[in-house]
Amino acid sequence: MFLLLCRSSNIYSNKSSTMKWVHPVAVTMRAMRTLSTLATLNGRNRKILFKLVGIGLGATTLTSVVTAGSNNISNLPESLYDVSDFMTEPVTPKSTLTKNKDDMKVKMELFIMKIQADFCRALENEEDPNSKFLVDRWTRSEGGGGVTCVLQNGKTFEKAGVNVSVVHGHLPADAVRQMKARGKDLGGKDLPFFAAGISSVIHPTNPHIPTIHFNYRYFEVTQENGEKMWWFGGGTDLTPYYLVEEDVKHFHSTLKQACDVHDSSYYPKFKKWCDDYFMVTHRNERRGVGGIFFDDFDKLSQDNCFKFVRSCAESVVPSYLPLVKRHKNDSYTSSQRDWQLLRRGRYVEFNLVYDRGTKFGLYTPGARIESILMSLPVYAKWEYMHSPPEGTQEAKLTEVLKNPRDWL
Amino acid sequence: MFLLLCRSSNIYSNKSSTMKWVHPVAVTMRAMRTLSTLATLNGRNRKILFKLVGIGLGATTLTSVVTAGSNNISNLPESLYDVSDFMTEPVTPKSTLTKNKDDMKVKMELFIMKIQADFCRALENEEDPNSKFLVDRWTRSEGGGGVTCVLQNGKTFEKAGVNVSVVHGHLPADAVRQMKARGKDLGGKDLPFFAAGISSVIHPTNPHIPTIHFNYRYFEVTQENGEKMWWFGGGTDLTPYYLVEEDVKHFHSTLKQACDVHDSSYYPKFKKWCDDYFMVTHRNERRGVGGIFFDDFDKLSQDNCFKFVRSCAESVVPSYLPLVKRHKNDSYTSSQRDWQLLRRGRYVEFNLVYDRGTKFGLYTPGARIESILMSLPVYAKWEYMHSPPEGTQEAKLTEVLKNPRDWL
Repeated sequence: MFLLLCRSSNIYSNKSSTMKWVHPVAVTMRAMRTLSTLATLNGRNRKILFKLVGIGLGATTLTSVVTAGSNNISNLPESLYDVSDFMTEPVTPKSTLTKNKDDMKVKMELFIMKIQADFCRALENEEDPNSKFLVDRWTRSEGGGGVTCVLQNGKTFEKAGVNVSVVHGHLPADAVRQMKARGKDLGGKDLPFFAAGISSVIHPTNPHIPTIHFNYRYFEVTQENGEKMWWFGGGTDLTPYYLVEEDVKHFHSTLKQACDVHDSSYYPKFKKWCDDYFMVTHRNERRGVGGIFFDDFDKLSQDNCFKFVRSCAESVVPSYLPLVKRHKNDSYTSSQRDWQLLRRGRYVEFNLVYDRGTKFGLYTPGARIESILMSLPVYAKWEYMHSPPEGTQEAKLTEVLKNPRDWL
Repeated sequence: MFLLLCRSSNIYSNKSSTMKWVHPVAVTMRAMRTLSTLATLNGRNRKILFKLVGIGLGATTLTSVVTAGSNNISNLPESLYDVSDFMTEPVTPKSTLTKNKDDMKVKMELFIMKIQADFCRALENEEDPNSKFLVDRWTRSEGGGGVTCVLQNGKTFEKAGVNVSVVHGHLPADAVRQMKARGKDLGGKDLPFFAAGISSVIHPTNPHIPTIHFNYRYFEVTQENGEKMWWFGGGTDLTPYYLVEEDVKHFHSTLKQACDVHDSSYYPKFKKWCDDYFMVTHRNERRGVGGIFFDDFDKLSQDNCFKFVRSCAESVVPSYLPLVKRHKNDSYTSSQRDWQLLRRGRYVEFNLVYDRGTKFGLYTPGARIESILMSLPVYAKWEYMHSPPEGTQEAKLTEVLKNPRDWL
């Protein structure tokens, strides 16, 4: 946990698969991290730690380290996260994070920052070396802020957005309504709330690579009677333009494995929920071939709920990256590109008409619109009465969107 | 009114500015129309009429003519409409139209069929001769139907949609909610309703021609206590990509003239309503440079309300066509095209997130989605954090969208 206190820099952890230039100071810091990790895992040797950290960091930081180091954090595996691996500094000030390190708000923020970094780097590895994520760290005047990472017009990814937001304040009536629709009757309006989430949509250039979306979030709302409610929500879903059954099976089975570790009833339940949620009602078709989706997840202990969410979010890279690698160099025709754009039009329809996350964002005052709407593709197309001819690959996809299948 | 009874054919009225091939039978029919118009205007000579109509039409039609001809229709100027000028036959069966010719439902249907034809033909005149409107006549199993005219990928118009719908049945709760938001508390759900309207969006190819939208509609709802409510609504608004003040002034002054004939308070009131309605709240900008917009229009007699709506709808062609003619051959750059597509992205955002007409459609069971969403452009674009540099023409437009002006 106290590693949070290291400032964000161009240091990459040794988990990275590529060799990167490392600044001499970084080497010192990495050595410290290794040592301090050992120290905290043992819950001992605080004095050694102080000394080592003292070499690299200033006095203020040292004070914070003392605070952090004086607690037992062995039950917080996320303390192992290397904040210097994050795309930028976390949203919440370090002092607050340190003081509240056992709070789920903090655990979730650190976790989604790590997932953001891991996913962005995995995508960058599939890109032209010149295409890197633009990192925008923003604050919300009403409380909190976020980190939006966008890669646009890359060779592999036409638009890739990975957004972390950690916001708090009071929830307005319109946003409450969006929550109520999820089965949460909050009994009043303008309630104090906290929301931390990661949300991502990747629109690849090549029509043979599916679009992926995932979103994992943690909510707290203080009710009128002062009682605090919390819950998790999230999901990962795939939107192919052409149906490759092997890809869809790989995707679903990776998600299933992540679910099964926790409860074998989760995958079938959340797979169905996903098919139901990503429904473009006015077209009578799903947005894609589904995945998993859940909300109001609060039946286990808070830590066990969090563990499940972590498993799901950590399965994003292994579920999707093999598909990117497999298809990024596939050839395609202009009519296949056209079909991709038409399907992206449907994606826009879902996001703007139905998606509760988007609506929640649009109705939350001070929300950062560019971060919410980064889910929209660069280009989308609409053609009056377009319908793929029977027997084509395009019709084959449409059939699956109308009649979702069990893939495993 | 009984001219409705003539079957739709390839006959164009002598009001058309271009010479068209006319079938010999059509000549006979035109002669009959002229005569029969005279006859009905005089409210006499029914015998002569029978005879003439009898030459061209069958016995069933003849019977209907008798019914129609036996009423005084001198208070129905729309009886002068030549149904053979319509893009296709009206939605409602002729017998019903004839029987209920004094009913506002019938008057409105005939009027919007005529406006559709006039507007489509005016647009076709600006097109390559090979680009013609596709005419789709559709029925709604729950009651009613419509006529959708679309011209796609033309030389002047990338997408032009002009839709007439005449629907009835029971209004579901979700649709009632959309109406309630308009200040109509209908006090219940699943109420019998009737709606007739024309709706059109024109997305030109050239970024120097603005997009236009207009919509004029008539509603009837029977309340739980059996009382029937009726009202009109509508508006015309302009969405330029580049600001040409002269164009905007011409557009607004044409609308103002149409309003002023009825009440000089209408234009300022409905101009403001338009600016307020076409607000993309999450972007804090208007969709375009406005026009007029009104709803719940029911304070005058039904006929006087209708007269106002007719003036508005009839001002569409003179407000817009001069702009098309002026700019259709302007040269433009690829970056100007790009800006047009980005602005079309915003158009999509408004239509899918806020537009009540679209929502009303999406929530009405059996609604024809392709007719509702024909308002969406062929292509739209989204770019993360796009903002035109200060001092550019693009920034000048953005300024006006953020701060609506009085144009006259």
